[in-house]
Parts: sequence; C-alpha cells; structure tokens
Amino acid sequence: MSKPKPIDYADASPEVRAVFDDIKTSRNVPDVNNFWKYLANDPKTLKRTWESVKEVMAPGALDPLVKEMIYVAVSVTNGCGYCIASHSAAAAKAGMTPEMFGELMAIVGMANETNRLVNGYRVPIDAAFEK
Amino acid sequence: MSKPKPIDYADASPEVRAVFDDIKTSRNVPDVNNFWKYLANDPKTLKRTWESVKEVMAPGALDPLVKEMIYVAVSVTNGCGYCIASHSAAAAKAGMTPEMFGELMAIVGMANETNRLVNGYRVPIDAAFEK
Amino acid sequence: MSKPKPIDYADASPEVRAVFDDIKTSRNVPDVNNFWKYLANDPKTLKRTWESVKEVMAPGALDPLVKEMIYVAVSVTNGCGYCIASHSAAAAKAGMTPEMFGELMAIVGMANETNRLVNGYRVPIDAAFEK
Amino acid sequence: MSKPKPIDYADASPEVRAVFDDIKTSRNVPDVNNFWKYLANDPKTLKRTWESVKEVMAPGALDPLVKEMIYVAVSVTNGCGYCIASHSAAAAKAGMTPEMFGELMAIVGMANETNRLVNGYRVPIDAAFEK
Amino acid sequence: MSKPKPIDYADASPEVRAVFDDIKTSRNVPDVNNFWKYLANDPKTLKRTWESVKEVMAPGALDPLVKEMIYVAVSVTNGCGYCIASHSAAAAKAGMTPEMFGELMAIVGMANETNRLVNGYRVPIDAAFEK
Amino acid sequence: MSKPKPIDYADASPEVRAVFDDIKTSRNVPDVNNFWKYLANDPKTLKRTWESVKEVMAPGALDPLVKEMIYVAVSVTNGCGYCIASHSAAAAKAGMTPEMFGELMAIVGMANETNRLVNGYRVPIDAAFEK
Repeated sequence: MSKPKPIDYADASPEVRAVFDDIKTSRNVPDVNNFWKYLANDPKTLKRTWESVKEVMAPGALDPLVKEMIYVAVSVTNGCGYCIASHSAAAAKAGMTPEMFGELMAIVGMANETNRLVNGYRVPIDAAFEK
Repeated sequence: MSKPKPIDYADASPEVRAVFDDIKTSRNVPDVNNFWKYLANDPKTLKRTWESVKEVMAPGALDPLVKEMIYVAVSVTNGCGYCIASHSAAAAKAGMTPEMFGELMAIVGMANETNRLVNGYRVPIDAAFEK
Repeated sequence: MSKPKPIDYADASPEVRAVFDDIKTSRNVPDVNNFWKYLANDPKTLKRTWESVKEVMAPGALDPLVKEMIYVAVSVTNGCGYCIASHSAAAAKAGMTPEMFGELMAIVGMANETNRLVNGYRVPIDAAFEK
Repeated sequence: MSKPKPIDYADASPEVRAVFDDIKTSRNVPDVNNFWKYLANDPKTLKRTWESVKEVMAPGALDPLVKEMIYVAVSVTNGCGYCIASHSAAAAKAGMTPEMFGELMAIVGMANETNRLVNGYRVPIDAAFEK
Repeated sequence: MSKPKPIDYADASPEVRAVFDDIKTSRNVPDVNNFWKYLANDPKTLKRTWESVKEVMAPGALDPLVKEMIYVAVSVTNGCGYCIASHSAAAAKAGMTPEMFGELMAIVGMANETNRLVNGYRVPIDAAFEK
Repeated sequence: MSKPKPIDYADASPEVRAVFDDIKTSRNVPDVNNFWKYLANDPKTLKRTWESVKEVMAPGALDPLVKEMIYVAVSVTNGCGYCIASHSAAAAKAGMTPEMFGELMAIVGMANETNRLVNGYRVPIDAAFEK
C-alpha cells in the first residue's frame, strides 16, 4: 500500500459513482471535493460518511449557516487544515460574512484559552450545573 | 503553593471585587461561578479574561445563543468537563432546546470524525478553497 | 538558534553515528529517515528515543503489524502529518492491505466521534467498568 | 434544558427501544451501557451512531480484538475516561491479556511522544513516503 | 468571504495602524509578522489579542526566555506549525541555546507520553496532591 | 483483564522493587506516587519510563523549576488531571510561587488561544522563520 490516491469519477466503481452522483445532486455541484475522492478508496466508509454528513448537516432545529460555523469551530480547534478550508468555504456560501467569521474565530480562541485555565486551576463544577 | 482554592467575595481584594461586581451586574446573577473564584488567585488574569469574554460574547454579527453553542462545540472537542457544563447551561439559558443540543452534538461528533479521515487519507486542499 | 537542520551521517559525531548504524542494521535500510536526522541535534534524545522505540515496537504479545497500526491511529488522531506518512509506510511494509487501512481509518474516525458524544452528553462510567 | 439524563428501556419510545433491542441482541447483553442511554435523548443520533459502530466494529480485514485496541488507543490519546473504560473492557472480553494491554499503552505513549518531537523539530516528510 | 488575506500597513485603517505601530515600537521591529497582518481582518480581535499578549509576555515573576519556551511547549503539543516557528525564533532571540531547545523538546515529548499512560492506566490522584 | 490496580511495594516483584527503590532514593521520598504503582503492571514500561523521566528531568541547560513548569504547561493543554496535580506539586516543591503559577497559566491559556487563531486565519509562516 502506497500513499492514498484520489479516485475520479471516470475510474470509480458503480458503488462509488452512486455516492458521487448523490453528492453532486444534493449540493448542485459539477464535481465532488478531494475529501470524497480519497474516501472512495473505501466505498463503505465513503457511503456511510456521506449519508451521516447529509443527515447531520440538513436543516433542522439549527440552520445550515450555524451548522457550518460549528464545523469550522471544531476543525480550527483540531487544526485540520483541509477541514478549515472546506467548511469555511461552505459557511461563506451559506451566508457567513467576514464579521461573523471574525466573531467565530474570537470565540474559538477564547474557548480554547478558558478550557485550559479551567484545567490548570482545577476548577470543580458548580452544583447548579449538575442538575 | 498548594492546590488552588476559590476566593469568595467576602475574602476578595477591592480589585477582585470590582471584577466580581461587574460580572454580577452584567449577567444579573447573585454570585459568580467557580471559574471566576479560582481565577481570582491571579487578579490580572481574572480582569483580562473577564473583559475579553465580555467583549467576545456580547451580541454582534452572531447572536448570543449561537455564540454559546460554538463555545460548547470547542469545549466538547477539548473534553473540558467544567466548560461543557457551564456553557451548556448558558446556551440553554439563551434558548437552546434539547433538539438544538442534539444537532450540536451530532455535528461536533461528525466534525471530529471527518477531521481524522482527512488526516489519515492525507487529503490535499482543493484549489477552489485556496482563493 | 535557527530552524533545526538535519544531520547526515557524514557530518555526525561518533555518538550519533552509533545510533544511526544500529537503526540501519536493525531495520536493514541504507539510510535513516528524516526523523532521526533531526533528532540527531540532541544526541541524548536521539539515543533514548531510538532505544525506546526499538523496545516498544519489537514483536511481543502484539505483532508488528498491529503495533504499526496503533501508531498510525494515534498519529491520525493528533494530526501529525510526518508520523502518519512514516508509520503508514511501515504498516504497509508489515503487511497492511488497503482493506485493513480502510478499516483502521473507519475506527479512528468513529472513536474520535464517540469520544466527543460522551463528553457532550456527560456520560458517567457504568459501574461494571469500574471493577 | 438541564444536564442530560439517561433514558432507560422502560421509559423509551418504540424508536429507541428498537435500537436498544438490536444492541442487546447483537452483543448478547441484558441491558445497554450508559452511552446508549444518554444518546437516546436524540433518537436519530442514537440510531445512526449504533449502525455506524456496528458496521465499523464488525469482523473484517481486522479482527475484533485489534479493532477494540485501536479504539482504546484513540480514546487514551483524547483522554476520554468513559471510552477508555468501556473499550478496555470490550478489548479484554475479546481476548486482550494484561501483556497486550501493556504493549498497547507503551505504543500509545511513545506515539504521543514522537508526534511532538516531529512537530518541534519541524521534520519534513521523506520523499519516499510521498509516493 | 474567500480565504483570509493579510493586511499590510499601507492598506490598514488608522485603528489597525495604531496596533501595528505599538507592536513595532514595543518589539523594535521594522514590520509586524504575518500573524498580526491576518488578525487585522478583525480590528477588535487584533487589538485585544495584542494587548493580552503584551501583558502576558511582559517580564514578571517569570523571565521572557522561560515564557517563550512555555509558549513553544504548548504550540508543539497542539501541532501549530506557525506558532512553533515564530515562538522558537522568539525564544532563540531571548537566549535559548540549542541545548535548551533539546531539553525543552525532550520534556514536551515525555509529558505527552506520560499524560497518556496516566489516562490508559486510569491513575487516581494521590491524596497528597489534593490538599 | 479488569480495571488496572496499583501494585504496592509489599506485593511487587524484585524487578519492580528495584525501580521503586531508585525512585525513592533519587527523590528522597518514603513511597512512590500512584503513577508508578500503576505502571508497575508492566515492569518494562515502568523501568523505561522512570529512566527516561529521570534523564529528562535532571538539571541541565534548564533548571528543575523551569522543567516542571513546562511539564505543567503540556499537561494543562492536554487536560490530564493527574499530571496537572502531580507536576504542579513538583513545581511548587522546586520553588514555583503563586505569582509564577499565575503567569504560567496565563501563557498556557494565551498560547492555546493564538494557536487556534493561526489555524482559523490560515496564517502562512513568515520567510524569516524558515531559515
């Protein structure tokens, strides 16, 4: 096994093409992103991941823009460059303005800071939060 | 130096009391949470952190509920028990329903999963995301 | 002190060369990887790390392929690009097939997801797991 | 919304009971673990997560013991106490001996160490790993 | 919103220029680093972050070299390439020798290792540390 | 295999006792901490870890107090409760004052914040840091 390679539509199995087609239709895009082309190396994980993402990111109690910003917040915390790039783009497409992005980053930074202050000072949970 | 201990209002310096008073007024609460009582061991960090949190979490391009949910997303990713408890409570107070919480958790879980699939498959950033 | 630079065999001290020689002999390779060339900037850490890795990765109750896949799982979780690349290659050399890699990634993704669901829902440990 | 509470079989909706029944049958256990009782607060996430875990952890190119140890490796890296406890128990049930656990921990520790040495020394990926 | 772009002094608002000027004066440098040019997209975060960093990194009970090495330790643990590069340079400027850097990396690696051994073995805190 | 249990001196093998004796002598303490009692389940890892820690934490180019504070910084970033407690105690024993602890925490918090700002804004490394 060498370094994973992307699988393009032209070279994909019918099983993989079915997922690619669903992504393209659902998102109204001419081609799928690299993420899906790499996952196509494992058709079961491709299918399961796409179906999970489609379900989780569908409009619900939270709207799509909020959902994409939460995705960005996690990706920035984990330092996943690809995910930051792709979900920032998706958030922008869903309506995120530069002001919103600035506030999102400010919160993510602040939360990462106070998470560690809590750890270091060994702060016990207030009784009110345990109900 | 032993384990950090909380500093209550009654035992606090004027400098610390001023911050506690501002927290109580701004949030309309009778007492501050443990987080602030522990930070009070370092009055400069207490003051700076409170002023930063106050600025960052104020209503802006994003509304307070969205801001609290982003805070929860980061805290869950980092596994900070205290922060999950306190910011889940704050989010609920700002209007988060159980349905919203369920969707928030689903996205946080999914993002943590796909962040690692990207790492493992070594997915390069699509040219479209680099503009 | 500027950016760390690799130290090649030709420029290495006898102390570093002894470690490089042991790596080359143990692994039957003509040269050591970049990791060791950079660690060579600190001969004590080079020696300690190599001896620890050699001991830990030797066949034991777990076979070398399983060991390399565990190494990949950690590296993917931490997002260490170099470590993912080098230990994926080592796992492949030890017999990891693309199917195995696919399953490995699926588990790593899933574990990262459920780790966060546990955090967010604040799930207490079942009594049965505490014995 | 207050702190998440577990949902027991007796209080569960038919949708949740169907998932609980499948878990109990698949694993041949009299009751489900706390993880599932908490996820039951969001029936969609409960169902999706169970189906994903069932698919990912089924015997395949990797055997169940190896799969559980990989799950433990990720959970230890992330510091998820619940997941470490539950998946260590599952691994033990699948045949993990104390010797295997010891070797697993040694690798997880070592990988977390060398991941950071790579970061700090800014080690570039060897050309051989990029093919 | 597209990919964030740096804002140079020539194109900056008076508000941003005031921060840039203070950075240049405080650090006695002819231009600010990329970090500040990107943060300039959000003038409030730029100002707050600079004032916080200036306060936190000022000489105090800990000297500047120790402070920069702590910054490097965190950045290496989180795998932030930019931060490792910039704070390693700042530490070197403050007097960090290659020997110090080697010891710093050795500790960071070791701490990341033992942090996980503690997690995996589920080690309870000694009573002596709880006082 | 059930939950790991500590191994006390009275029940330890000669191999384990030799390590415990060396820890007690080196640190001039009447008994070893829980960490070592749990690691004793795997004598090879106990021995290797102790010898590595002893080498890494010995006085060198960095003094013991600085070394312990770096250990705390990593442990706080990773959220390892046991390690925060034990290494904070060790740092205090080595001379860390409450003022030093406050500054340490402030830097750790700040570094975790700016690490994420860098990720989110996708800041490229300045050419000056690549030399």
